[in-house]
Amino acid sequence: RALWGGRFATETNDLVTKLSESVSYDQRLYKHDILQSKAHVRMLAKQGLVSKDDADKCVAGLDQLCAQIENGSFGQFDVKLEDIHMNIESRLTRQIGEPGAKLHTARSRNDQVATDLRLYLRDEIQLLIALARSLQSALVILAERNAEVVMPGFTHLQHAQPVVLGHYFLAYCEMFDRDAGRLSDTLNRLDFCPLGSGAMATTTLPIDRFFTSEQLGFRHGPCRNSMDAVSDRDFALELLATISISMMHVSRISEDLIFWMSQEAGWIELGDAFCTGSSLMPQKKNPDVCELARGKTGRVYGNLLAALTMMKGLPLCYNRDMQEDKERLFDSIDTYKALLQVFREMLLTLKPHRDRMLTAASDPFLMATDLAEWLVRNGVPFREAHHRIGALVGECTRTGRRLNELTLAEMQRIVPEATAACLELFDPVRSVQARNVFGGPAPEQVRNQVQFWKKQVWFVDL
Amino acid sequence: RALWGGRFATETNDLVTKLSESVSYDQRLYKHDILQSKAHVRMLAKQGLVSKDDADKCVAGLDQLCAQIENGSFGQFDVKLEDIHMNIESRLTRQIGEPGAKLHTARSRNDQVATDLRLYLRDEIQLLIALARSLQSALVILAERNAEVVMPGFTHLQHAQPVVLGHYFLAYCEMFDRDAGRLSDTLNRLDFCPLGSGAMATTTLPIDRFFTSEQLGFRHGPCRNSMDAVSDRDFALELLATISISMMHVSRISEDLIFWMSQEAGWIELGDAFCTGSSLMPQKKNPDVCELARGKTGRVYGNLLAALTMMKGLPLCYNRDMQEDKERLFDSIDTYKALLQVFREMLLTLKPHRDRMLTAASDPFLMATDLAEWLVRNGVPFREAHHRIGALVGECTRTGRRLNELTLAEMQRIVPEATAACLELFDPVRSVQARNVFGGPAPEQVRNQVQFWKKQVWFVDL
Amino acid sequence: RALWGGRFATETNDLVTKLSESVSYDQRLYKHDILQSKAHVRMLAKQGLVSKDDADKCVAGLDQLCAQIENGSFGQFDVKLEDIHMNIESRLTRQIGEPGAKLHTARSRNDQVATDLRLYLRDEIQLLIALARSLQSALVILAERNAEVVMPGFTHLQHAQPVVLGHYFLAYCEMFDRDAGRLSDTLNRLDFCPLGSGAMATTTLPIDRFFTSEQLGFRHGPCRNSMDAVSDRDFALELLATISISMMHVSRISEDLIFWMSQEAGWIELGDAFCTGSSLMPQKKNPDVCELARGKTGRVYGNLLAALTMMKGLPLCYNRDMQEDKERLFDSIDTYKALLQVFREMLLTLKPHRDRMLTAASDPFLMATDLAEWLVRNGVPFREAHHRIGALVGECTRTGRRLNELTLAEMQRIVPEATAACLELFDPVRSVQARNVFGGPAPEQVRNQVQFWKKQVWFVDL
Amino acid sequence: RALWGGRFATETNDLVTKLSESVSYDQRLYKHDILQSKAHVRMLAKQGLVSKDDADKCVAGLDQLCAQIENGSFGQFDVKLEDIHMNIESRLTRQIGEPGAKLHTARSRNDQVATDLRLYLRDEIQLLIALARSLQSALVILAERNAEVVMPGFTHLQHAQPVVLGHYFLAYCEMFDRDAGRLSDTLNRLDFCPLGSGAMATTTLPIDRFFTSEQLGFRHGPCRNSMDAVSDRDFALELLATISISMMHVSRISEDLIFWMSQEAGWIELGDAFCTGSSLMPQKKNPDVCELARGKTGRVYGNLLAALTMMKGLPLCYNRDMQEDKERLFDSIDTYKALLQVFREMLLTLKPHRDRMLTAASDPFLMATDLAEWLVRNGVPFREAHHRIGALVGECTRTGRRLNELTLAEMQRIVPEATAACLELFDPVRSVQARNVFGGPAPEQVRNQVQFWKKQVWFVDL
Repeated sequence: RALWGGRFATETNDLVTKLSESVSYDQRLYKHDILQSKAHVRMLAKQGLVSKDDADKCVAGLDQLCAQIENGSFGQFDVKLEDIHMNIESRLTRQIGEPGAKLHTARSRNDQVATDLRLYLRDEIQLLIALARSLQSALVILAERNAEVVMPGFTHLQHAQPVVLGHYFLAYCEMFDRDAGRLSDTLNRLDFCPLGSGAMATTTLPIDRFFTSEQLGFRHGPCRNSMDAVSDRDFALELLATISISMMHVSRISEDLIFWMSQEAGWIELGDAFCTGSSLMPQKKNPDVCELARGKTGRVYGNLLAALTMMKGLPLCYNRDMQEDKERLFDSIDTYKALLQVFREMLLTLKPHRDRMLTAASDPFLMATDLAEWLVRNGVPFREAHHRIGALVGECTRTGRRLNELTLAEMQRIVPEATAACLELFDPVRSVQARNVFGGPAPEQVRNQVQFWKKQVWFVDL
Repeated sequence: RALWGGRFATETNDLVTKLSESVSYDQRLYKHDILQSKAHVRMLAKQGLVSKDDADKCVAGLDQLCAQIENGSFGQFDVKLEDIHMNIESRLTRQIGEPGAKLHTARSRNDQVATDLRLYLRDEIQLLIALARSLQSALVILAERNAEVVMPGFTHLQHAQPVVLGHYFLAYCEMFDRDAGRLSDTLNRLDFCPLGSGAMATTTLPIDRFFTSEQLGFRHGPCRNSMDAVSDRDFALELLATISISMMHVSRISEDLIFWMSQEAGWIELGDAFCTGSSLMPQKKNPDVCELARGKTGRVYGNLLAALTMMKGLPLCYNRDMQEDKERLFDSIDTYKALLQVFREMLLTLKPHRDRMLTAASDPFLMATDLAEWLVRNGVPFREAHHRIGALVGECTRTGRRLNELTLAEMQRIVPEATAACLELFDPVRSVQARNVFGGPAPEQVRNQVQFWKKQVWFVDL
Repeated sequence: RALWGGRFATETNDLVTKLSESVSYDQRLYKHDILQSKAHVRMLAKQGLVSKDDADKCVAGLDQLCAQIENGSFGQFDVKLEDIHMNIESRLTRQIGEPGAKLHTARSRNDQVATDLRLYLRDEIQLLIALARSLQSALVILAERNAEVVMPGFTHLQHAQPVVLGHYFLAYCEMFDRDAGRLSDTLNRLDFCPLGSGAMATTTLPIDRFFTSEQLGFRHGPCRNSMDAVSDRDFALELLATISISMMHVSRISEDLIFWMSQEAGWIELGDAFCTGSSLMPQKKNPDVCELARGKTGRVYGNLLAALTMMKGLPLCYNRDMQEDKERLFDSIDTYKALLQVFREMLLTLKPHRDRMLTAASDPFLMATDLAEWLVRNGVPFREAHHRIGALVGECTRTGRRLNELTLAEMQRIVPEATAACLELFDPVRSVQARNVFGGPAPEQVRNQVQFWKKQVWFVDL
Repeated sequence: RALWGGRFATETNDLVTKLSESVSYDQRLYKHDILQSKAHVRMLAKQGLVSKDDADKCVAGLDQLCAQIENGSFGQFDVKLEDIHMNIESRLTRQIGEPGAKLHTARSRNDQVATDLRLYLRDEIQLLIALARSLQSALVILAERNAEVVMPGFTHLQHAQPVVLGHYFLAYCEMFDRDAGRLSDTLNRLDFCPLGSGAMATTTLPIDRFFTSEQLGFRHGPCRNSMDAVSDRDFALELLATISISMMHVSRISEDLIFWMSQEAGWIELGDAFCTGSSLMPQKKNPDVCELARGKTGRVYGNLLAALTMMKGLPLCYNRDMQEDKERLFDSIDTYKALLQVFREMLLTLKPHRDRMLTAASDPFLMATDLAEWLVRNGVPFREAHHRIGALVGECTRTGRRLNELTLAEMQRIVPEATAACLELFDPVRSVQARNVFGGPAPEQVRNQVQFWKKQVWFVDL
């Protein structure tokens, strides 16, 4: 018979037990649930709602349960007890007797689970920030290593202008910086304590919500509205959204790496330990980690949408629908955590094929804009310069030649202002060095940014 | 060392092994994988690619593995072997030696997994259809039982016109009929055999794809294009969409039941075995199954979106991203299956409070349209009739009276055509009987539809 | 004052008018709304609910309105009248007087809009099927043109085995075949007539739902349940899902084309008319159509999710939330229609660079599997053969050589069975011809499939 | 011929023009585009890249264009010119000649549109924050008005414990406070200037990015990485996620209001100006605004998913897919803005039916927890107390009585500790006053929170 079963005439149907239990996945909250219960029972004692002695027994019993769970002697969780909260309370009472039956005084599972989740997420988000920073540090290392490796920059997957490989890595570094910022904001916003909100209307007993909040280290104190406190899952949604945006970044790096590793580009090599082969084709070495990361982006988006959809249109306050928050949230956290770790390791094995990159960047079409800008410097309005160089390009395309294969005379037919100096513009190294603007791809700029990041990013080793 | 590891210099990184293994969830395909391998090796023997004897050894070994998996003696699957395919091939070779090493001839995991999935889904979809039909049968039973239970029908969650409770159940029955239709269409469309497509370009060996297809009972024969065969996950997406739409239906029933069970309506009771209580509030009896169903609708939508997003923009042919199809698909199937079953059981415990329903339907405002239609029958254009009855309603609202509390004289001030006959219209039972149009809520229509469904729906007992 | 305003004391707030009007987008239903009204009023006359004369006046008036809308003389729709239904009814009454006020007899906007939408979608889906077939016909033409153009086939965006370009186009052709099938199924399933369901409880007036259903050409007759009839938007969800899956296919073609058009591959050219340039870089020619298609896939997914989420957990029957179905649906239809058209045109401008493709396919690593299969034919178990060729590949990678640069002696050190015949396997043309299995990439197979499709696909010119 | 058309041999296909134009929706950026161009050309002059005189002409011309657009004399935008940027540049050149052709010097549409969007969003987000605060102020007013209106609080849509209506409004107020916080964080994070990043590699011309950034008032200066600057749409995704979460809150209020307005609850009235009627049923008064809000939540979720999906897996840097960001973003902003405004107005018309609410809260089952807590105060462990009261409730349910209809003797059979004092607990007003815990529903707490919010929320009148 369920702990709440006083008024019920029959036992819960087995299909329902299976459908509604959560202990198979919310057991990961055990530590935070116990932490909370200890703070709660200490508060009950302070307020005279349980005796000091009972509280001490509860605390000791809870500590023992925690140890048992961690050393494996706790045994199986019981799905008939539904969730981690009831499993712990029930076992506590079995182990210490009556004092355990007092633990749930002035508390509902509604405020309990909301508090557990926030405690859990505080820890997890801090870890995610550290992992994101750690991935940034790998990117900064790669940026420094590749600050002079010239390659084509792309728009529309078409060659645009030459850049250096290090500049790419710094672009990703910016992305994870925003992600870490979002994680911090999420962490800050959730740092309120729901405990004491009860089922949704607090209690007629004289509890002290400020005491428990402080014991549990919540920065902003207790939640200001008991109905909101148990109805609110914004923190889950915000974290799911933040992870989704960051996974989008992971998917973009992945796409670039997959392309660079194609035989068509052939620009990089990833370590054998981070690739896998084919059961049929002996020659294959596939960038599976990148592909999985890209695929798992969909999974993480799906989790966000699942949670948003679940919360939509729910009346206040707690509804059982909200139990669905946890599996989606845990799945996104686990997925994201694994990818941050593996990308850091994988990226550090990346080896560029500099020659192939430089060759690709040497197509003079990539310097067409340099030529237009040279004309601007020589007084031609940009729109006019653009149009004329476009015509030159068209001429080359039709006649199957490269821009630097035109003679000066040929060039001058379309661009009368052209001089011999123009012909020197078609060097990608020179081109990239000339883009020495703040935030630009010139090696000097890249090195400046590397210095900036070295001061920002914690070079954590996790 | 991985089975594909010939060309690799180092072992796979542990993080990658953990990230990329699928055997923890694709093990549920074991039976279909073995079925397929048996057909495949028989074909190899028929074509002279392996000896009859080797094929027999493979078949016997595979049957033995199947038994071992089912009786628990197989032991742990090995995540280093990545997936169910490699686990089975590897164990087979360990058990029967060299013939096992011939099993993967002219086959890739790409066509193998595509075939496994289709075989698996054929079985699952047939089961889902049976479960949907079975839920329909419960709804038809309820419709029959409640063909005369008058209650308010709603639009905008406002009382609209009286209906009977049985009519509601038949509305849901229609929904699951469309769902079963969609499941059938999905089943039919996936009934092609990818086996023999290899990694994406078939093979130089003389295989017989028609033989394996027939052995495996695929209705439409082998897939017509090897690249499509291994790239295609339409069947997964279509099934995920079909389940999503059907779960939307489940969520709508749930919403209605939750509302009907609120103290404000108080119209129905669900069996104690299908409700749960509160850890804090002793009086609570909550419709958790309905709430979970509603919440899990988000989950199932999320799975659909995850899979759609994962497939978007993938180049041909197989990419590792596609490994993400399975967990989402299995989760939706399991969720949907559980809910179809539990709803059938739960609905059969539903008890209506007829008096409360009838009282609610007796507000004469619900018969305002009957009055307008009476005027139409007496020659007033409908738009004019509507406007005048609207004014009557406004008058009642302002003066706090019900429509049937107006005297005939008062009514005639706004509706001169009104006669004593009008005052008889305010009976909900009469009103619902008067809506005796095909598809309408009159008990006679409901009974007709019940007869129709009794011929359509398999009264399966699962 | 609104047509429904009889009971209301104040006018609708302006913000609400703006928020809730739908005529700005549902005006596209005008033709089907008028068609329906004509059938409805004829039925009213047949049943004696309006006079024959009034019905004739309504029909003539509706025909006139249709003409006015189409020739532009109708003028502005009035947002105060909310939707297309009220705009037409109101104008009709203004133009023909009292008979117009009878049009809405025994009808609600709930069954009206459900009927309009189904009528509209019947037309649109037929057009979409024709467009999908038309795109298929372009793919078949391209397949025939390129049945011998050898190129690398990919898995994981890594070279796998040689195929022909025509085989790629047939893979896409399969995808759109399934899409057309799904469109047909959707069309068939929606072909029921909701008209006569009223607000949700039909009517007390003696209407004939079979008559209107037949007049409007609904294949399966009237909807069987009036509550379901006005609550059901499955047809919209199913179509949105079908379009989403098909747009996923469009996005995959796009991804392939973008890659093929990159300077790294350089395998194809798309017509200038289907590419655009850069405002800054004069040399750029970007595959914008492909990129837009890929981006719009997200849009179409979003529309599906919007509609699924909107419908989730709605109580029966009609709720105003459901008004949100139309914009999302129309947007997906318009987007999909435009892309089917433009892809057909664009694909016909595609020019392959055969030499570059063949060169890429000539890397002997792509024939590694042929070598393994040669060993199988010479008695080596496949798994063993795979492992040994893998070792050969590893040797090549370490020493920077290609497979065909090994001497026979070197090869025999790892693969003792190797003979001079092995060295002849490294020809991609021979390799692709050798994959002459049903559904395979050999030119003969591709031509067979082209013949198959020529019989299936309507070569429509739209 | 397009402005970028120098190298193109043929004109853009008409289908492509229609598919790829954005001026039909990005025209709303005109003001920010002009603002940016003015800052840009001033910088060009400062750096000697155009003459002071040319810059002045550009600035004056741009101001004139702005005025023309606003007073309607600009005329039609030209879809052949694709977007707002090209429309303005082209018109400027037509009006002022050669200086206009210099405007696009050292700029690409890639950095231009990124800058426009950030400028636009800075304004929009500030407005959204003000609107959210304004809605909060309405909620605070309602909380104050209804601080003593006792009603049932719910969990699982079942009566839980009595609360006051004002407490509900403060719960919503908390939600919008978090939303405003998220909007602020988004605003802060996007406040970097992309201008000068060019197509993705800055420029060889000596521009001053700090000057333009400062001119345009960007708080954090220029973007630090030119590739990221043009590839980044995080700000759009973050805003779409923030709006989605906030719309979820709107949907929850809506759900509560719809339920409260049902005939079953009958607790509130919304102003006629915020409800609409039925075309068929004269008595209907529907909470359409709430329903539309709930439905539009799906739309806003769809926009988020569309944008996330669109960005997933895009290679750096700009891809045309990203053009799809704007329509989805604008749609969410417009939808959210309209709903914040209309909810504020609508809520202020809300009238509670206090008697009906109090009656509903008077069911003694709602005070079952008070009784359990009374037992706790008298020494019974909570879990035991809960179980015994549960048994009392079961007894009542079986015998069809209310808790306060039991005699003390009957009560004592199950709860021996019960005294006459227990019978006084069944007063909902007393119960709600007794829950006088921080954040609780007691009127005193509600009034305290109202005072808190009065200091926080700007009482803006927009």
